[in-house]
Amino acid sequence: MKNIPLPNTPTLEGNLDKKLLLQVAKEYQTPLFVYDFDKIEEYFNQFKLAFSGRKSLICYALKANSNLSVIKKLASLESGVDCVSLGEIKRAILAGIPTYKIIYSGVGKQDYEIQEAIKLGILFINIESKEELLKVESIAKTLNTKARISIRVNPDIDPQTHPYISTGLKENKFGIGVEEAKSLYLYAHKSESLEPIGIHFHIGSQITKLQPIAESAQKIAQLLHSLLALKIDIKFFDIGGGLGITYKDETTINPYDYAQSILECLRGLDVTIICEPGRFIMGNSGVFLTQVLYEKISQEKRFVIVNGAMNDLIRPSLYNAYHKITPLNPREGELAPTDIVGPICESGDYLGKNIALPPLKAGDILAILSAGAYGFSMSSNYNTRPRCAEVAISQGKARLIRKRETFEDLIALEKDYL
Amino acid sequence: MKNIPLPNTPTLEGNLDKKLLLQVAKEYQTPLFVYDFDKIEEYFNQFKLAFSGRKSLICYALKANSNLSVIKKLASLESGVDCVSLGEIKRAILAGIPTYKIIYSGVGKQDYEIQEAIKLGILFINIESKEELLKVESIAKTLNTKARISIRVNPDIDPQTHPYISTGLKENKFGIGVEEAKSLYLYAHKSESLEPIGIHFHIGSQITKLQPIAESAQKIAQLLHSLLALKIDIKFFDIGGGLGITYKDETTINPYDYAQSILECLRGLDVTIICEPGRFIMGNSGVFLTQVLYEKISQEKRFVIVNGAMNDLIRPSLYNAYHKITPLNPREGELAPTDIVGPICESGDYLGKNIALPPLKAGDILAILSAGAYGFSMSSNYNTRPRCAEVAISQGKARLIRKRETFEDLIALEKDYL
Repeated sequence: MKNIPLPNTPTLEGNLDKKLLLQVAKEYQTPLFVYDFDKIEEYFNQFKLAFSGRKSLICYALKANSNLSVIKKLASLESGVDCVSLGEIKRAILAGIPTYKIIYSGVGKQDYEIQEAIKLGILFINIESKEELLKVESIAKTLNTKARISIRVNPDIDPQTHPYISTGLKENKFGIGVEEAKSLYLYAHKSESLEPIGIHFHIGSQITKLQPIAESAQKIAQLLHSLLALKIDIKFFDIGGGLGITYKDETTINPYDYAQSILECLRGLDVTIICEPGRFIMGNSGVFLTQVLYEKISQEKRFVIVNGAMNDLIRPSLYNAYHKITPLNPREGELAPTDIVGPICESGDYLGKNIALPPLKAGDILAILSAGAYGFSMSSNYNTRPRCAEVAISQGKARLIRKRETFEDLIALEKDYL
Repeated sequence: MKNIPLPNTPTLEGNLDKKLLLQVAKEYQTPLFVYDFDKIEEYFNQFKLAFSGRKSLICYALKANSNLSVIKKLASLESGVDCVSLGEIKRAILAGIPTYKIIYSGVGKQDYEIQEAIKLGILFINIESKEELLKVESIAKTLNTKARISIRVNPDIDPQTHPYISTGLKENKFGIGVEEAKSLYLYAHKSESLEPIGIHFHIGSQITKLQPIAESAQKIAQLLHSLLALKIDIKFFDIGGGLGITYKDETTINPYDYAQSILECLRGLDVTIICEPGRFIMGNSGVFLTQVLYEKISQEKRFVIVNGAMNDLIRPSLYNAYHKITPLNPREGELAPTDIVGPICESGDYLGKNIALPPLKAGDILAILSAGAYGFSMSSNYNTRPRCAEVAISQGKARLIRKRETFEDLIALEKDYL
């Protein structure tokens, strides 16, 4: 079982059920996010299988896609979750994730969020700074309890990804250097209000090279050894998330190799591995459907103007991210380089640039691939555009999992002040 | 009256009523957007005065900030509005803008939006392509009426601003080349369902140099002359928006000089000038207030982690935009370069980088200046973060104009599908 076959490629022509997606677009209208729940299960099981030789807990990184029905699906697969706000913790609980499978990360936790997380009895809080450690201690003391914690250690290793989603360098805001972490563990160990049970690192997102992760794991495992030698009883080795997916032609990390490189560092140690995949599970499980409004041949360029925009899917604008784009009703004719742009009044409003597309007509539906992660969760109402509906497909059947916003929804919190 | 004094500078120490803002932060909590309605009036009147020697209509660009109370304030000043979606048109009408002062722009209008706009009897629709012209014609025909239109002409002039907000080059998706525009005007003139009454250009946003605007105006005025010679009765010369403001130390265009350069092109012509300021009116009329959670001295950097984030104000991340940042409760001590970062798990989540700030403590409030435009209107729920409340200040009194979102608001459209 050296190489688990990777389903981690975009749902391209061969795999995409275009007929079904056309029906879905017709029934639920566009722009629209559609998630394949069978694929979610497939990707989740990839991870589970890779780590199956070892005590492990997969904590889905909720920020990638926090739709309640998505979480419920993952709960049914016995997933845990990695949350970065009290809102996310509430979503997880509502969708059926047991509190003992919830971890809480993030650099900017507010007092009321920490308090609530402790009261709810989640598995542990990932600590990002000394200041936060002291705050958690003081809140736990007030609550007359012990807060279970893990410390996010910054290994100072370059993940070789987009600077915005790189988090493991010492010039980032994330985590605590190795030496300081050690002294904080000692402090926490002696505290009556803290129970250090985990050690954590996370160096970035959309990582496609194994080496930076393996190096980080080794560095953190060394620290773990020295903590155990000090009789600090660390039970969880939280390796974060960040495994890249194929958007275009990236070669990605095989989960089996990933697991092996982690397991090598942990030989002889009795700790449970926690991993936090988000994009890996959701990215290629979802597509964004949008309808062609106009084709406009400008003096020098071919533009296809669609009804989806940067407010729906901001990744191309924000990260200069590439998404494959394919028409669901392809027409005969030559492919031509095309900019797929939205109705928003900014040149930054594009979904793709120089994408080879066949002739298109108004009303045609385009599928923007690999849009299941960081799509809807980052969407806004810019230009007073209602946010999309979300649809789940499973066993060839579609169902709504979030209603499309209406104008009334958009003004609900303002209209009383007119 | 050669130089109208410019109030268009950030509301810095001298002008900022820190005591009042601290009270507001306490009463309405943070993160929070606060708008100075007296300043809105001041900036609006600047524009009005600049163009006062001439028939003119100021159409506030709603996308900059579409809060209903902001629009109502502008309606009371007799402003019109420039809308880019049916949602924005509905907001304008609800807030008291008369339909004859509403224009509708944007590259991606949908059929139902065009239909509704015509039915509502707005002033005119800005046409962005031949395809759209034909669509508007066909919809008007079905409605058995004439649609009033203007054509957005692309002057192919570089506005010298951020590529994302530059819109007047021929490689942009916006507008129609001069020659094609002329033939479309002739077509529209003969159509029984179209009434061409305006001519429009708009070359970008946050423009700080007058020359590109003046050049564009000249080019478009030439076209106007030739249309009038053809007995096409153009009544409105719509010069778009895009006047830059001072975020840092930019020298901006004086509205009086701006108006003069436009008026020069229109000598002897009996047309009403329409202009579409958005950022100019709102940008420096608003601040974003956020609270310090932690100060974190990492190995090489000083970070201040605040409770506001890129989901609230995305301009720094998206456009690499600079905003002045000032503490409302300044403390004694040396200034040190500081990254002001939010709680979101991305290195791209920052509000400012290398900003010189004095010592700060948890609980201190920072004001992010120049945040009245493209702040709240672009905000999202990323990381399940509820969107901010919005507050208006007028004559030293504060009042809520939009309630803070709750967790229940965030899941309202999903929870029935669990």
